[in-house]
Amino acid sequence: MPQGQPTTVPDDGLTTRQRRTQPVLAVHTGPGKGKSTAAFGLALRAWNQGWPIGVFQFVKSAKWKVGEEHALRVLGASGEGGSVAWHKMGEGWSWVQRDIEDSEDAAREGWEQVKRDLAAETYRLYVLDEFTYPLHWGWIDTDEVLAVLKDRPGSQHVVITGRNAPAALVDAADLVTEMTKVKHPMDAGRKGQRGIEW
Amino acid sequence: MPQGQPTTVPDDGLTTRQRRTQPVLAVHTGPGKGKSTAAFGLALRAWNQGWPIGVFQFVKSAKWKVGEEHALRVLGASGEGGSVAWHKMGEGWSWVQRDIEDSEDAAREGWEQVKRDLAAETYRLYVLDEFTYPLHWGWIDTDEVLAVLKDRPGSQHVVITGRNAPAALVDAADLVTEMTKVKHPMDAGRKGQRGIEW
Repeated sequence: MPQGQPTTVPDDGLTTRQRRTQPVLAVHTGPGKGKSTAAFGLALRAWNQGWPIGVFQFVKSAKWKVGEEHALRVLGASGEGGSVAWHKMGEGWSWVQRDIEDSEDAAREGWEQVKRDLAAETYRLYVLDEFTYPLHWGWIDTDEVLAVLKDRPGSQHVVITGRNAPAALVDAADLVTEMTKVKHPMDAGRKGQRGIEW
Repeated sequence: MPQGQPTTVPDDGLTTRQRRTQPVLAVHTGPGKGKSTAAFGLALRAWNQGWPIGVFQFVKSAKWKVGEEHALRVLGASGEGGSVAWHKMGEGWSWVQRDIEDSEDAAREGWEQVKRDLAAETYRLYVLDEFTYPLHWGWIDTDEVLAVLKDRPGSQHVVITGRNAPAALVDAADLVTEMTKVKHPMDAGRKGQRGIEW
């Protein structure tokens, strides 16, 4: 449910209209389900606004995001709404930390591409899926990321998902939601299910 | 990230295959963002599986779910993936509790429709958006809902969203995620933004 009114009005010299187009940095973190899922749900709204959307997957997930990718590709090609570009970093990248050098390189290459796109204002919404992990592992420098995001031009919204969001990222974000696991079918011995988990 | 293995294997006489098609009852609750958004993200996966999807909005939200509705309608009509039926309960229903008798009636009518669809196995995924509120307010009897869900035929998945999920619903659910607000732009005096909030 929307809460209609802000609790305070900031003394920032901006009009309400200006504040409404301020770029948002959102973080979905925590151990629960729904971090990425909610980011892709947000992409539906961006698509409906006609915005170009860039998805950057920072973890190999050939199986686990196929539904979202297919849906967003169909939406992007529908002729209604915005466009969708789907970037899979590290097609050869493994979540298991083998070939760690390559994984680090792949993550850093992905971030360099995000930087170029931000500078060029390629997209209006960026979904940096599972981006907290390379930050958490120190593969990509959080301070540099925050500096780049702080100075990004225009009105480009960025959503970052993943567990263990660095504290500095949480501090810098405008919108932070933590997903907490209350109960999961796997606790009761179920495995992942088609259509639910992927 | 998926955890690949369940922590225990239940002694329920089912095969892994049978467990994989067990119907899931999921609840997204808590005061944070992303409860509905993650449910609509889940619908993308169901759509990708070719499943018929029924969305039931239990709160008037002409403004706040337009992006998701448009996207899911386009997907449902794309000729790829599953079908999408979008039900707006209480087109004349107000979140502000005026005309409370009418609102109660509208909510109960909606639930009666859900019951008929469950009995007929009309959909494979049901998104009962903001359904916790009529339960919380006592407009719809939680025990009856749980009895109907427990006995629903086939493999019909149900996702219920909203704050204040009744404890009995949480107990009965297979998957419960609580969305916690860590930080929200409105705390800093920003209003809701196009493409982010709707």
